[in-house]
Amino acid sequence: MEEKRNENDRFMLYVIDQYFKGKDLAKQIPSRPEDIIEFIDVDLEEPTTVLIDSLRDRTKSAKGIPAAVIGIGGGSIMDIAKAVSLMFTNEGSSTRYQGLNLIKNPGIYHIGVPTISGTGAEVSMTAVLTGPEKKLGLKCEWTVFNQVILDPDLIASVPTDKWFYTGMDTYIHCIESRDGILNNAYSTAYGEQSLQLCREIYLGEKSGQTKENDDMLMVASLMGGLSLTYSEVGVVHAMSYGLSKILSEKHCYANCVAFQHLEDYYPEGVAEFKTMIKKHNITLPTGLSKNWSEETITAMANVSIKLEHMWNHAIGLDWKTKITLDTIKDLFRRL
Amino acid sequence: MEEKRNENDRFMLYVIDQYFKGKDLAKQIPSRPEDIIEFIDVDLEEPTTVLIDSLRDRTKSAKGIPAAVIGIGGGSIMDIAKAVSLMFTNEGSSTRYQGLNLIKNPGIYHIGVPTISGTGAEVSMTAVLTGPEKKLGLKCEWTVFNQVILDPDLIASVPTDKWFYTGMDTYIHCIESRDGILNNAYSTAYGEQSLQLCREIYLGEKSGQTKENDDMLMVASLMGGLSLTYSEVGVVHAMSYGLSKILSEKHCYANCVAFQHLEDYYPEGVAEFKTMIKKHNITLPTGLSKNWSEETITAMANVSIKLEHMWNHAIGLDWKTKITLDTIKDLFRRL
Repeated sequence: MEEKRNENDRFMLYVIDQYFKGKDLAKQIPSRPEDIIEFIDVDLEEPTTVLIDSLRDRTKSAKGIPAAVIGIGGGSIMDIAKAVSLMFTNEGSSTRYQGLNLIKNPGIYHIGVPTISGTGAEVSMTAVLTGPEKKLGLKCEWTVFNQVILDPDLIASVPTDKWFYTGMDTYIHCIESRDGILNNAYSTAYGEQSLQLCREIYLGEKSGQTKENDDMLMVASLMGGLSLTYSEVGVVHAMSYGLSKILSEKHCYANCVAFQHLEDYYPEGVAEFKTMIKKHNITLPTGLSKNWSEETITAMANVSIKLEHMWNHAIGLDWKTKITLDTIKDLFRRL
Repeated sequence: MEEKRNENDRFMLYVIDQYFKGKDLAKQIPSRPEDIIEFIDVDLEEPTTVLIDSLRDRTKSAKGIPAAVIGIGGGSIMDIAKAVSLMFTNEGSSTRYQGLNLIKNPGIYHIGVPTISGTGAEVSMTAVLTGPEKKLGLKCEWTVFNQVILDPDLIASVPTDKWFYTGMDTYIHCIESRDGILNNAYSTAYGEQSLQLCREIYLGEKSGQTKENDDMLMVASLMGGLSLTYSEVGVVHAMSYGLSKILSEKHCYANCVAFQHLEDYYPEGVAEFKTMIKKHNITLPTGLSKNWSEETITAMANVSIKLEHMWNHAIGLDWKTKITLDTIKDLFRRL
């Protein structure tokens, strides 16, 4: 990392979860006076295109183009670090680049240091952003981190509910990438091993937040991320994106809220998920849709149905004959 | 790949297994008139430092520095492509660089296209070479391929005995990387999944050289390669290197010849290996050592005992109190 210091305008941009401000981890960062450290609150909402554009513009005005971007945090911070690294070398707003292979130039060097495991964002080739019109990733080969530092000690103090929801993102990635038409031997091998690790961590005799399980969870997250990268996610993520875009629900939590009601799509997965929920005394809300207006449900279903690549993978090439806006609205009414 | 064409002296160096000369695969290579195609016979011996140095010098005299090196073949060809790419940018003989992190400069862009699966050379960070004094890899972060193309159709016509020996290299990598002090969650997760795939391919109900199994074998090889890269090999490889260096035995075959006699080090692994041997009617030679002179046995044991990193991993930090030259000579006498 230090060998990159002399590139561009010779400073590092650290993007760190606000949670670590003043904590030990923040004090251990090997920053120099010329570096910029940005603490970002990712608890309020998922990363937005506005956040990325303003972070890029602010940094450029202050000091120019960084030598490297280092993200320290969870999936949101990983996505922010990946996205901003691309936006230093691609003109205009990040909203222009939401989709597959729309980015024109490689980004600047970027390093991921995950402090919570499960989203797979540390290895995936997308940086998911919520824009004015859609929730969709900047997805291309240059999105992938140039370097990832995995240190299980960093995830040791994650609160139990977050540990659960985020780990379940991995579990869901593996189920979704397996159960669909883009399934292949490479993705399946990663998914199978990741599922096996999830079972040990969340259901095994030595289940729970132990040092050994934290080691395994870091690997499970990485393997789940590779499983989905070489296949595709499905119905859970299509619904979860709707929940996040319209109601600002956090991604991993939104996945769990949707997944519990999708046993007709993923029967074994949902059954096992419910066993894990029970084992760790997690309470997920139900009956949410009673308080949602018809407009809210329609808006969520509209976000969801546009994620054609997910429906295509999960349901098949003829998905439009089976899934309509009404089908998806009914799925949201289950919540 | 084509976007690299304008780098250096604007030609590609193809390094291809002699086996493919005149065959369909060779005709499909997207080469241009300015490119160099080198067919190399890797059946006679493992790649040597002399081979690498002369390939580099010959290419430089003829056309200069290639834009990229593309290796198409098995583990030997993978190692040749990786090693020569480094030797275009590092001066002198490759014998200077046998060991860990001795390489000074990144190599030129190099691409691996495996046509037989098992060695893991397509993903590992070493390029094993036999030199005048030792058999040891050029091992550093730049050894790793910049790009790997996995096409299971390319391995469909591998002869059964090679399919077996090479696949068993993967199996042995996973057993050795797991059973030693450098074992860790990352390496173990890769090794476990690779073992699982090997069991399906070599012992499962649908065992054999099928399209599905070829898909899985490519992934198993890759995962086994990553398992050993992040841990270490052990007693089997330490002995196998001795066999290859002194008797010019091929690596994967030499591994199998040694592994069958090492049940006291790897009890479960050797037992399962013997079931696979039986299932596929493979005949491995025994009683070889009866024809070896004391000098030959001593020479092989001398090669083996110098691979300290392997003994250290397999036996422990105090391995020198347990393993002497005589112990290793006795191991060779089992063969």
